[in-house]
Amino acid sequence: MRVPRRGGKYEEDRREAVEIFKEVECVVFEQDTKKEVGRSCALSASPHAAGAGPGPGENQTTAIIDVNPPRGTRDFPPDDMRLRTWLFHNFREVARLFAFEEVDFPVLESEALFIRKAGEEITEQLYSFEDKGGRRVALRPELTPSLARLVIQKGKSVSLPLKWFAIGQCWRYERTTRGRRREHYQWNMDIIGVPGVAAEAELIFSIVTLFKRLGLTASDVGFKVSSRKVLQAVLQCYSIPENLFGEVCVIIDKMEKVPLSEIEKKLTSIGISLEAIKGLVQVLSLKSLPQLEELLGAAGDAVADLKQLFILAEQYGYSQWIHFDASVVRGLAYYTGIVFEGFDRQGNLRAICGGGRYDKLLSTFGGDDIPACGFGFGDAVIIELLKDKGLLPMLTHTVDDIVFPLDLELQGPAAMVASTLRQKGRSVELVLENKRLKWVFKHAERINASRLILVGDSEWQRGMVRVKNLSTREEQDLKVDELE
Amino acid sequence: MRVPRRGGKYEEDRREAVEIFKEVECVVFEQDTKKEVGRSCALSASPHAAGAGPGPGENQTTAIIDVNPPRGTRDFPPDDMRLRTWLFHNFREVARLFAFEEVDFPVLESEALFIRKAGEEITEQLYSFEDKGGRRVALRPELTPSLARLVIQKGKSVSLPLKWFAIGQCWRYERTTRGRRREHYQWNMDIIGVPGVAAEAELIFSIVTLFKRLGLTASDVGFKVSSRKVLQAVLQCYSIPENLFGEVCVIIDKMEKVPLSEIEKKLTSIGISLEAIKGLVQVLSLKSLPQLEELLGAAGDAVADLKQLFILAEQYGYSQWIHFDASVVRGLAYYTGIVFEGFDRQGNLRAICGGGRYDKLLSTFGGDDIPACGFGFGDAVIIELLKDKGLLPMLTHTVDDIVFPLDLELQGPAAMVASTLRQKGRSVELVLENKRLKWVFKHAERINASRLILVGDSEWQRGMVRVKNLSTREEQDLKVDELE
Repeated sequence: MRVPRRGGKYEEDRREAVEIFKEVECVVFEQDTKKEVGRSCALSASPHAAGAGPGPGENQTTAIIDVNPPRGTRDFPPDDMRLRTWLFHNFREVARLFAFEEVDFPVLESEALFIRKAGEEITEQLYSFEDKGGRRVALRPELTPSLARLVIQKGKSVSLPLKWFAIGQCWRYERTTRGRRREHYQWNMDIIGVPGVAAEAELIFSIVTLFKRLGLTASDVGFKVSSRKVLQAVLQCYSIPENLFGEVCVIIDKMEKVPLSEIEKKLTSIGISLEAIKGLVQVLSLKSLPQLEELLGAAGDAVADLKQLFILAEQYGYSQWIHFDASVVRGLAYYTGIVFEGFDRQGNLRAICGGGRYDKLLSTFGGDDIPACGFGFGDAVIIELLKDKGLLPMLTHTVDDIVFPLDLELQGPAAMVASTLRQKGRSVELVLENKRLKWVFKHAERINASRLILVGDSEWQRGMVRVKNLSTREEQDLKVDELE
Repeated sequence: MRVPRRGGKYEEDRREAVEIFKEVECVVFEQDTKKEVGRSCALSASPHAAGAGPGPGENQTTAIIDVNPPRGTRDFPPDDMRLRTWLFHNFREVARLFAFEEVDFPVLESEALFIRKAGEEITEQLYSFEDKGGRRVALRPELTPSLARLVIQKGKSVSLPLKWFAIGQCWRYERTTRGRRREHYQWNMDIIGVPGVAAEAELIFSIVTLFKRLGLTASDVGFKVSSRKVLQAVLQCYSIPENLFGEVCVIIDKMEKVPLSEIEKKLTSIGISLEAIKGLVQVLSLKSLPQLEELLGAAGDAVADLKQLFILAEQYGYSQWIHFDASVVRGLAYYTGIVFEGFDRQGNLRAICGGGRYDKLLSTFGGDDIPACGFGFGDAVIIELLKDKGLLPMLTHTVDDIVFPLDLELQGPAAMVASTLRQKGRSVELVLENKRLKWVFKHAERINASRLILVGDSEWQRGMVRVKNLSTREEQDLKVDELE
């Protein structure tokens, strides 16, 4: 083959190359080794022709399967998987910047870990079942209880504070048929052992850092921040027994989705007076800290925590991302302090993420009374938002080299060439069948190969291969050990 | 603070630093903002002191939970997670070198996908149950059926060949109580659409590449290779109906674990003659290709495939890693051609990985008749082996910088410093509580921090921080924007 000069002439070279190798037919590789059975098997006294009859595996009866994944679940074909890998990589990179360590737990846990009596949606929609040994188990609906379990298990063997993160699939079982998904992935970051709101400030900043990495700004997204202590103060005003606290929170979390009359009915049914309900509704409508201070007084923890959080946000430099909004309650019963959720400012989507302080969760599980806070960040809403904003990256399958033996006999040498390149860290697509050169060019385009390495007989006899740069269109013959 | 000269004096500096900051007591950060409640809540006509009574969350009753993960499952605390991440990174890196694309499927699939009638262990130990909608579902025992399902679903929209890999958790339910695990992670690599053994050669080479990356040599591990076509030829010799093929394979796969009399009993019960069993046993004992050729004749596919595979292995340069061993059958009914398994040469462990050709699986699922092969590589045996060989890496949590505010008031500035460093890509542990300097040094050691950044009042007033290199023990004051 002629080595063309730099630049231009790609189409011409290509046509020429196609001409040169036209005679190589698309022969299936193994056909070369298949021959007629010439003699009978030496095993049996009553021999039968070994070539006759159906092949192995044909005994299996065809059972046409549903090609879709189970209702509410997803496959991740390569395109979707690349996107997921990209998103998870961003989660992990932020976690690294914030010095969090990754952990994981079984996707299947004891049902008891998730059973709380506060009437949370998460518990009502638990994907639980009985295993073959009669044990109640559940596909986890969230990661926090498993994390709490592991912290208790580790006990004194770990030094506080812990900064742990996890990325895991979470499940729910909805009886409705609205086509909502039954699984999603969630990124969790948790700080165990820090009582002050500096922890919440750090957590929210980690999410801000993620948002920025993804190309989102404070005009795209923000955080609504409140504290469960606000509600607690109100409940105390009306002498509402503290054992109703979780339940009240779970009910009023639905305020924006459910008619007020419904909320009132539910609260009344657990014994909350109409006066207290009025007080709750009044507090929940507050959108500024001075208003809150006026209502609750400056002295309580609720106002103090929030004030301090906003001071820290200012100093971190993300105060334009957050604001106080008393209507944020979050639907999990176990939060005890600051609660927050990330939202899109256009208001089209559900919460992007949510979290808060859960200082009592470990002790309710029988562990030590260790303060903790954390957040969950799902993979669904963020992808919707990035799509809306045109911020999803174009991710394609790319390889460095495609290696093509021009001849059946050259499969081995081509494998050797591929191996040499892989040892140098290059990703190599080795063509494993006898294909036409035309197909190889098309395939190289499909997989975004940078170079095509042709292993041809005459070059190979000189220990060389033809290397074609598929973007500059340059070609040259190189010795195998010269390949970089 | 005095800036010490380069070199030495670490302990002295440290003692001094401890002295200097001794007065900073371990005050919990938020205590500073907690004050006595001074006035009553403005909400209620009948006010109650807001500071009184139990805090939020204390309503939750303590339900002591089992701190262990469900029987047969694992948590991944940071140490174990680092090891898993390291192993998976190696899987992914090999997949990248071989130009495979990552895919994933739901961990929960329709039970029907895994139900085969050949009596496989994998089907008998299926972790299946009925969901709340009455559907039979299963936690996947393996990844290949899901992959086949996805390939069929994609149909003509994808170009063959496909080179796909997946890393996923697989489950089984064993009734025995031997303490064997119910889940493991499996790395799968599959080539869809290539009929010839060049595909198997490439797959085995990808595993060899992994072994080498992990520090294993051909004297540590190897591959036993055979072909299901060997057994098929024998069955044909004895006119055994081809619908028994899968079942026979599954039974004789147990040859090394179950007494021969048991195997004979099972084979007899499905109608295999004693003469045929003798023939099978004879073939299974073969360890060389010439012997096989003598027995079956050179003409059949079995011998031809194997010969070609060994030629390719020679050319790839990994022939010392593989040998023919007719006793390798593999326990999955769907294999039709080459089968192989990776083993440790000391013979202490179960198979490290296994795979083969399954040309009929897609058509038995109702898809087109597309040739395919692949392997599964679990996370358990390889870790055991690497541990035995002393090849497990020492993986520790490391961070670049630890940032410590010497004063409560400096939490915000410290956050700003942390943020500056993180913007430069450094992983930063920000101390979120008021701790003693002694604790901070100990903590820095625990998390393998390279530098300690002290944010002190006097330096901060000059816009500076003290930077201590924890390995060279050098210290200097730097402007925040000079920090690298």
